[in-house]
Amino acid sequence: MNAIDRLAELFKNFPGIGPRQAKRFVYYLLSRDGNYSDELIKAIQNLKQEIAQCNECQRHFPSTNSGQALCSICSDDTRDSSMLMVVPRDIDLEAVEKSGSYKGYYFVLGGVVPILEKEPEKRIRIKELESRIKKNKNIKEIILAMNANQDGEHTAEFIKQKYQGLPLIFSALGRGLSTGIELEYADPETLKNAFLHRTK
Amino acid sequence: MNAIDRLAELFKNFPGIGPRQAKRFVYYLLSRDGNYSDELIKAIQNLKQEIAQCNECQRHFPSTNSGQALCSICSDDTRDSSMLMVVPRDIDLEAVEKSGSYKGYYFVLGGVVPILEKEPEKRIRIKELESRIKKNKNIKEIILAMNANQDGEHTAEFIKQKYQGLPLIFSALGRGLSTGIELEYADPETLKNAFLHRTK
Amino acid sequence: MNAIDRLAELFKNFPGIGPRQAKRFVYYLLSRDGNYSDELIKAIQNLKQEIAQCNECQRHFPSTNSGQALCSICSDDTRDSSMLMVVPRDIDLEAVEKSGSYKGYYFVLGGVVPILEKEPEKRIRIKELESRIKKNKNIKEIILAMNANQDGEHTAEFIKQKYQGLPLIFSALGRGLSTGIELEYADPETLKNAFLHRTK
Amino acid sequence: MNAIDRLAELFKNFPGIGPRQAKRFVYYLLSRDGNYSDELIKAIQNLKQEIAQCNECQRHFPSTNSGQALCSICSDDTRDSSMLMVVPRDIDLEAVEKSGSYKGYYFVLGGVVPILEKEPEKRIRIKELESRIKKNKNIKEIILAMNANQDGEHTAEFIKQKYQGLPLIFSALGRGLSTGIELEYADPETLKNAFLHRTK
Repeated sequence: MNAIDRLAELFKNFPGIGPRQAKRFVYYLLSRDGNYSDELIKAIQNLKQEIAQCNECQRHFPSTNSGQALCSICSDDTRDSSMLMVVPRDIDLEAVEKSGSYKGYYFVLGGVVPILEKEPEKRIRIKELESRIKKNKNIKEIILAMNANQDGEHTAEFIKQKYQGLPLIFSALGRGLSTGIELEYADPETLKNAFLHRTK
Repeated sequence: MNAIDRLAELFKNFPGIGPRQAKRFVYYLLSRDGNYSDELIKAIQNLKQEIAQCNECQRHFPSTNSGQALCSICSDDTRDSSMLMVVPRDIDLEAVEKSGSYKGYYFVLGGVVPILEKEPEKRIRIKELESRIKKNKNIKEIILAMNANQDGEHTAEFIKQKYQGLPLIFSALGRGLSTGIELEYADPETLKNAFLHRTK
Repeated sequence: MNAIDRLAELFKNFPGIGPRQAKRFVYYLLSRDGNYSDELIKAIQNLKQEIAQCNECQRHFPSTNSGQALCSICSDDTRDSSMLMVVPRDIDLEAVEKSGSYKGYYFVLGGVVPILEKEPEKRIRIKELESRIKKNKNIKEIILAMNANQDGEHTAEFIKQKYQGLPLIFSALGRGLSTGIELEYADPETLKNAFLHRTK
Repeated sequence: MNAIDRLAELFKNFPGIGPRQAKRFVYYLLSRDGNYSDELIKAIQNLKQEIAQCNECQRHFPSTNSGQALCSICSDDTRDSSMLMVVPRDIDLEAVEKSGSYKGYYFVLGGVVPILEKEPEKRIRIKELESRIKKNKNIKEIILAMNANQDGEHTAEFIKQKYQGLPLIFSALGRGLSTGIELEYADPETLKNAFLHRTK
């Protein structure tokens, strides 16, 4: 395999990228001068060096010194320690944080548990979640912030059953009309929730 | 204009139909035998004869006798007369009714009021809504069940301002995650509402 | 079934129309006044009365007097009687005629023969094609103008084998780059033909 | 800007990649272990080291020794030296070569000349094309293999005018029905060409 095909092979692993687009990426790199490739290589190297994984919430964050173990959110004492929001991935945490509505702490599961998965423990950071919960005695509510689909619901169910003995409230994000949705195209479940959680 | 083009011209008025599909409809009719066209003509004639518009909610309904003025929902005494849900169109009423969650009465506006519309009264049945509200002294809550977009919000705002003097509670369908939505693709407004209306 | 559902059921047969859009068509008719429905009914009635099927090419055409049996193309003596173009449907004939490049006669098959079809004779007007060919002794070339897909190729193959004894040239529409196609996305077959049929 | 955003910024330059997908690429890299990043970095480094640009056709090719100046096609004496196919980009050359129909030589322009472009020389390798043509006295036909769109046609026109004095035949890829195209959706230009270049 030559250098073009070898790099295309690696790009094909990127989320949402097929063989054709992978090839286009390679030709794009070839069309740019050496500086761009150098910059890209340096940025990939820096990623692993400058980005640490937070000991508490498990998300990736820019770490100014190599010994740092807590991200900016987990090391912020002013947040509400009675709430822990569990999200599937880093990018979901970012989306919620950007909405500006939540002021508690987070935990990034690292994935979801698909239905019929035999070894759910290998798909999500269930042990890390356990230590995170045990460590903080203030937590009263665990918000299971999952995608509104089957895998999301299954993951929430799995976590709830795991911790059912603990004196914790488990909540889920409210269902209803997402921005842009028209009544005509909304499913019965969404309409039911939209009615039940109507705002006055 | 020949008979093919004339009929295509009429089909072009159908919602979502362009000139090419209109033409395909005509050729489809030509490909079927005379019975199908006869059935279609009869069904269109019956529509106007058998379908009445309800005096109360303004929706279209199959009327068994020509003098009938109330649809099956409006003539059902067991429903909750303290609630009136205002929806844009017949099809929206159908969607909510199918969800099985709502047991009050309805009112079909017949459209929405787009932003910057100078004559909102011509777009929606505002007078009919007024008489509907005045007629029933039991109504305590008006649920403005609009599409989760700009026009929907504007229509709700217009109705609320119109009746602000009346001793009525105005509510809106709950915003949140619609079925199928992933956190990553949800807008800040939706995420904010999903968090605020989280379920325990 | 009420008049709304009955009409929606008929609209669902229209090409490309699902249950939801069929329902929207019905509500659209209800939202228009009686004149529109009357016009629509009249246009459907006129279709069968004013549109005849051509005895020669089998296409539908506006017939000014009820006894007329030939369409404007088939009754045009100035066209080139040495060529007969066989197309799947009326709408394909229209597309070719609009391109202004062909001056021979046509024959509308009324469909295609899918691969593995056991009774091809029921899918296309093979007998009518036979009489059309036998009737005109001038025909030298049959242009099998099929869609550039499997069913199209199979239909062409079927017709060719059927008439292989006859002293006729069978041709097919040229393959190559359609307007808008980029080399990168063209399949090998298309590129091969585009090269072989390059223009100087 | 932190290391995540910096790398996302670079990925955003990749063809067809928006800010959201660029971010997902970064998180994907973070989710993989260090080996994958190392492999990726090595593959990008190798690209520039192992891939050379051919002196003749200008395409990128895997060069086994650093001094090599001709790609495998240009150094293949058995190909037809009377034909030179001019293609916009490396990936187009690959597509044509895969179709197995062409046995002459190539030249990669490096882009196209959009309509109204004031400095066409900066967009394509026009000087390199000139030396390529002058160098080989055998060339009789230049095949301008452009995309079947406005920019493609404009680029072909630009090249033809540039060299109109030379004793060369300029040809273009044949237009016609691309694989998968249905007559009904073909434009008049495509149908006209499909008829003119019909195959017997």
